[in-house]
Amino acid sequence: MPDREHDLLSIEDFTYDANGLIPAVVQQHDTREVLMVAYMNRDSLASTLETGKTWFWSRSRQKYWMKGESSGHTQDVIEILYDCDADCLVVLVNQNGPGACHTNEKTCFYRRLYPEAASLAKGTCGE
Amino acid sequence: MPDREHDLLSIEDFTYDANGLIPAVVQQHDTREVLMVAYMNRDSLASTLETGKTWFWSRSRQKYWMKGESSGHTQDVIEILYDCDADCLVVLVNQNGPGACHTNEKTCFYRRLYPEAASLAKGTCGE
Repeated sequence: MPDREHDLLSIEDFTYDANGLIPAVVQQHDTREVLMVAYMNRDSLASTLETGKTWFWSRSRQKYWMKGESSGHTQDVIEILYDCDADCLVVLVNQNGPGACHTNEKTCFYRRLYPEAASLAKGTCGE
Repeated sequence: MPDREHDLLSIEDFTYDANGLIPAVVQQHDTREVLMVAYMNRDSLASTLETGKTWFWSRSRQKYWMKGESSGHTQDVIEILYDCDADCLVVLVNQNGPGACHTNEKTCFYRRLYPEAASLAKGTCGE
């Protein structure tokens, strides 16, 4: 068992959840904007390392998929980082096409909850 | 039921997993570096919105906690974004103290898997 805080890990050394998945935060490498968060299993992580494109496991479709396989909006992997307890990945990519989201937005995170929600919670609208 | 792709959502409208949790990617607001990924439940999201500090649910300790409550390395919330299917948050913060990681690193993502792992997988070291 490797030292999770110090050793260089391999695919089998990561912590996967009960469904065999590890979350992957995908960032555009130069702007560092978060494009999407998706889940990888061991096979999709292996394919990502081998091909240099992002592969995931779709929980809703129960399907192994390459990002952009239908839209053409693939992601070229620049770097993959992992966290101190080895249960999460950050994947720095170059996004091809207009964006990462199925809505055609550049990023899936195109809406803001805060500070708007704080104003509502605190009743600063006078209600 | 709100339109998840277009409406401004509130705490109850998000998709939580079977344990009542939603993942939160925490980024330093100016550099956009990913500092950590943790999980919020409804209560910790409400506290985050109310206090402007980050609150999470610790899966390992089964405990509601404010980031920095013991270390003093709190996070001031600047913005919270949410994704197209409303099952993930991005929290833009200003990190107080030397960093977000319990190892005293600036970020929990201080190790790199790729491109190193790709070289190993492809045997480019001549082995």
